[in-house]
Parts: sequence; structure tokens; C-alpha cells
Amino acid sequence: MVRSIEWVDGPRPMIRLIDQTLLPGTEQYIDVSTVDVLVESIQHLVIRGAPALGAAGALGVALAMVQGSVDGWDAARLETEIDRIRDARPTAVNLAWGVNQVRDSVPSGTPKVLKLARQVVTDDEAANRQLSKHGADWILAHVAKEKVRVLTHCNTGALATSAWGTAYGIIHELHQRERLGLVYADETRPLLQGARLTSWEMLHDGIEHVVQADSAAASTILRGLVDVAIIGADRIAANGDTANKVGSVSLALACQRAGIPFVVAAPSSTIDLSLSRGEDIVIEERHEDEVLCCAGVRMTPTGARGFNPAFDVTPHDLISIVVTERGVADTATHAQSDLLATIAGSETRVPTVTAPPGPTEPNPFPRR
Amino acid sequence: MVRSIEWVDGPRPMIRLIDQTLLPGTEQYIDVSTVDVLVESIQHLVIRGAPALGAAGALGVALAMVQGSVDGWDAARLETEIDRIRDARPTAVNLAWGVNQVRDSVPSGTPKVLKLARQVVTDDEAANRQLSKHGADWILAHVAKEKVRVLTHCNTGALATSAWGTAYGIIHELHQRERLGLVYADETRPLLQGARLTSWEMLHDGIEHVVQADSAAASTILRGLVDVAIIGADRIAANGDTANKVGSVSLALACQRAGIPFVVAAPSSTIDLSLSRGEDIVIEERHEDEVLCCAGVRMTPTGARGFNPAFDVTPHDLISIVVTERGVADTATHAQSDLLATIAGSETRVPTVTAPPGPTEPNPFPRR
Repeated sequence: MVRSIEWVDGPRPMIRLIDQTLLPGTEQYIDVSTVDVLVESIQHLVIRGAPALGAAGALGVALAMVQGSVDGWDAARLETEIDRIRDARPTAVNLAWGVNQVRDSVPSGTPKVLKLARQVVTDDEAANRQLSKHGADWILAHVAKEKVRVLTHCNTGALATSAWGTAYGIIHELHQRERLGLVYADETRPLLQGARLTSWEMLHDGIEHVVQADSAAASTILRGLVDVAIIGADRIAANGDTANKVGSVSLALACQRAGIPFVVAAPSSTIDLSLSRGEDIVIEERHEDEVLCCAGVRMTPTGARGFNPAFDVTPHDLISIVVTERGVADTATHAQSDLLATIAGSETRVPTVTAPPGPTEPNPFPRR
Repeated sequence: MVRSIEWVDGPRPMIRLIDQTLLPGTEQYIDVSTVDVLVESIQHLVIRGAPALGAAGALGVALAMVQGSVDGWDAARLETEIDRIRDARPTAVNLAWGVNQVRDSVPSGTPKVLKLARQVVTDDEAANRQLSKHGADWILAHVAKEKVRVLTHCNTGALATSAWGTAYGIIHELHQRERLGLVYADETRPLLQGARLTSWEMLHDGIEHVVQADSAAASTILRGLVDVAIIGADRIAANGDTANKVGSVSLALACQRAGIPFVVAAPSSTIDLSLSRGEDIVIEERHEDEVLCCAGVRMTPTGARGFNPAFDVTPHDLISIVVTERGVADTATHAQSDLLATIAGSETRVPTVTAPPGPTEPNPFPRR
């Protein structure tokens, strides 16, 4: 399994990233030893994916401390540089979450911060493996198929996380249980994380799949070609509304119409209880050139302008479940303003996974 | 206004096409003097768009007769070649319709067929201008905005028709009436007819617009950034279900959720009363390379496979109105199996355009 991000010890410690902008054509690693390069790498999507950004945030604080000691930063400068990492991208809460996991320990020195940051990475992999089990259990309990056909969007695999993946992790888990049918992977314009990264990971993992245009996803769902859609999340509000890669909400609308489950998978660190609802989530708008060009080639006429929101918000009533490492929350039928507090806020109130119903139970996702 | 297709008289008469695969970078014309080249041009989308294919079908019969007289074809061979034109693409009914408009006159000779075919072209432009007026009237009666903001998909302009356009024609009409706000044009993967062609036409026509990824369309609608979505159609079943460029049905789902109208615009020749419902429409599946590549560059890893349906079906209950040159049919609230027979089948039963309601009338497109 590839690692999207790793800490490298050495005379000058650094963070090693696989350059995801060059995949699948080129497998090239970037050694990051300054905050400038880290911030640029985050903004240019060398590293992307909400959980991977959590790791980048935590390891980034350690990196800033190393650079600060070399370059002679005072405490105020160090704080400023850590803020720059935290704010490099606005939508994924995990980036700020990762920074905040270790920031309080800055006065205790780099070894302590690094130890905590490495724990963030380890915990993320463990969370992903756990949520994948929860998700697969729930899907197999609710989809009466020997082989479950899945639609997914963007990349949520090892590349998007510290390891293993979230929505991709569930797909991988189904594959390991020999219960996975064909996967439809949305190409995910404008930056084609599905076509470039998800397909690359699936080929490595031996997962049978086809890549389709994002615009084909709704009809793939409505034509009955898949049994469930599984996606990740970049931020989840307290009421269960989620922000994810643009294109997600149209999948949710199609799943509702088709009467199949729409599953959102993310580590509990993605839940942001400071936001009561999806409308409060800041949606990053990226440079228009990402839309105006394809594969680096300008496709639009000179003078044309682009509109390029990177994320969209899916209202909780369209989401069958939110799966985290702590269990499954049914956001559609148990809507309440503090639903996710039980997952995000407390170790003691772990929701139990829904008990498997018999295969003859009525469809729990009726057409509306 | 550009012409997508023209008949050129001369020592050897021929059809002249603007090569839409090269736009907007290169404005190049192709002179077509054989059925082989015409069929290839249709299949490779040198010419595309349902109404333009109707013109290609009608003029194509004349072209086949010219080639047949030069190459010495017998009647059976001529019939075979005309069938090849008719069947070059399966989803757009207009291609076969165009062929059938003139085919019965083949025994009367080339001048007669050519005259009829030219009438098909002339009638298409007249139909487009008329349906654009109907569509603009209806929208201005139902959207209480001084400037109507529009979302559209694929290309339905002069390039997609004999002239003027269908959905694009309505947008153009609103623009001429100084009632048009910003237009959001979906790029329309995989072949980017929106990014390449619609944007090019809008720049020529001075229509303010932005190009967005197809996956952004649903959130643009749900965020309240547009007042209406207007698209074309490649085939319309008797009950009002429509087939259009893949990605259309997700717009309809989002419009339903947002409570804004979803308008389908097409000449009445697009209605196929031989099909009772959308499920009966044959959906063309095109080569996987269109999805696996972007701008001619392979974006997916070696070994990846693609799924490339060119169209999808929008059920009539998601369509606010179908607009043709003969008027407006409200498919969502007046669902009946023979609704469109009044439009397609009879000159005498012309539906009247809905009378304008006052601006304070309740939203006729409530959330469901």
C-alpha cells in the first residue's frame, strides 16, 4: 500500500509526499523541509484528501518547529507559520484538526510534538480500518446482493488518507470479503482524482472497476447498475450535513430517487460540531484555469471565464448513514441537531452499528 | 451566425460542415461528397446536435443520390447507403426523421429531394426561432426576476441545429429581450461541447457566462445561483420522458429539489410517438477512450476501463415543460401517455402557451 505522507528522520528531518498531481503517469516523491513548500504542496494538491491533510497538519507543526530552530524563528513567528499551515485550505476541517492535535505541545519541544503527530497518522489508519468494517457490515446487512456493485466519487483511498482509505476502505473491505461487484469510479473533474488516483489504486488492489464521466453517475444509479454509492467527506456539520468533492450531492439526489443507500465515510475528526449545518461550511473556490483547461490544454475559447467550486454540501436527509470509526449514524431518519455529538464528542457514547435485518426486510430507502 | 451544415452547389454538389471537433481552436470546414465521409463525420461528431443531424439526414439523401449517379449505384445500393446514414447514430431520432422526410421522393429525382431537404433546413431554423419565443414567454411568466439566470448543458446553439438553436435559442431570445442574467454553461464531459462550443457561441453573441464542471451543476442549482435550467433533447417519448446528453437527469433532480423549473426545448421532430416511455429509448454507448482521455491525453492508468454512455433519460415528472415550435407541454403535472401526440401528431391541436401568472403567484415548482 502506497503512503501519501511520511516523516523522514535524518540530519534535517522532513516530510516526504508522493506528488499526486503527477499520478498515474509518474511516481515521484517530494521532500518537504520548509513551511513554504508544505503550504504550496497542500494548495496545489500534491497532497489532498481530508484525512491525509490531518496528517499533514500534525506533521507540519513538527516541521515548522524544525525549520524554526534552524532559521532562528521566535515564538510569534512560529505561531504565524503554524497558522499558515492550518489555513492553507478552507473546507477540510481535518487540516486544522491535525494542527490542533499537537499545537498545545509546542512548548514541550519537537520530540513530543513529533510523537503526537505520528500518533495522529497511526490513529488515522486504525480509524479507517475500523470504519471500513462498520461500513461493510452495514452495507451487507442492507443490500441483499451476493456481490455489491458500488459507485464512488473522487479519491478516498490510501492516497487521500494516512493509509487504507475511507469510502475506498469500505470498498476494499468488501473486496477482501469477496462481496464486491463492479465499481463505477467517477473521473472527478476538474482534477480527475477518480480517473488518475482511484483507478490507479484499484488496479494495484485488484479491484474491478470502470471510470465514467461524473455526468454519467446519476443515470448509472437510476438505471439500477449499482447497489450503493459510497463517498468520503471533507467536513461534517453537527446535524449531519456533509461537504465533499463537488458532484457529491447529485449522487445523493439520484440515490434517493433510485431508493438505494448513499453512504458517507470519514474519520470522526471530520465532524465539526462548531458548525450547526451545511450552509455554514465555507466552500473553497479554486482557480478557474482548472475548469478552463483539460490535461493542461486550454479547451475553452479565449475570453471565457470559469466557475470552480471545489466542494458541495449534501443535506443530511439525503444521506443514509455517516460511518466513522466509532460506528454508524443514521442521519436521514434520525435528524437531530446534535446527532453527531455522540460520535465526535464522546468516547463513552458510541452508537452501535445497526443490527443486520433479514434480506426480506422492506427497502429502507424508499423512493420519495 | 455560424452555419453547422450547408449544401454547396457546383460541378460536384456537396455538403459543407464546420468541423466541431476542432472548435474553438480551429475554424475549419469539411467538404463532404461521399456517404462514407458523411457517416464518419456524424459518428465522430464533426456534426452533432439532434436538429443538425436532422438536416444532415435530409441533405444526406440528396448527397447519396449524387454519389449514386456518379458511381453507378443501382436502386438497392442506394437504399443501403441511405440506411447507413439513417443509422449512423442511434439515440437522436432527428437523424432518421430527416432521412424519412425526403426518402419517399427519391424516385422523383435529386432536384426534388434536394428541394425538400433544403426545406427541412429552413423549417428547422423557423421552428427554433418560434420555440425560443414560446420558451422565453413561459420563463418570463414563471420566473419573477428582472434578469433570469440560466444553467445549460452541452451545446444546443446554431452549431447543434440548422440555425439559431433550441435551449440556446431560448437563452439568446432572453438576451435579445434584455432579460438574461449570468449563464452557467456545463463543460459537458467527455467531449466538452459546453466548454468548447457553447462558450464559443456565447462569446460571439455577447452572452455573459461562466463554464463549470458538470459536477458543479447540482450545487449551483441548490445554492440558488440560477433561476431555471434549460436543455435540449435528442429524443422525446410519447409520455414526455426525454433523452439528452448524459448529465441532464441530475440537473432535473436538482431543479426539483430547489423548486426551480427544468425546461426541455426541441423541435417537434424530436418527439418519437413510437416510443411510449424513456426506458424504450436506445442509449448510445460510445468508445471508452473518450472518457479515459482528456484533450487527447490519457489520464487513466494503463489497464483501466471506461464506461461511456452518451445520453441519459429524464423522466417526465422531473420536467417542468417541453417546448417545441408548436407550444408548451407541461409534462410534470399533466402526465398522460399521449400528451405529446398533440404536439407531434397534429397541426390542428396546437397547445396554447400558458397564460402569464402574476409575479406574486405561488412557486409552481414546490420542493417535493
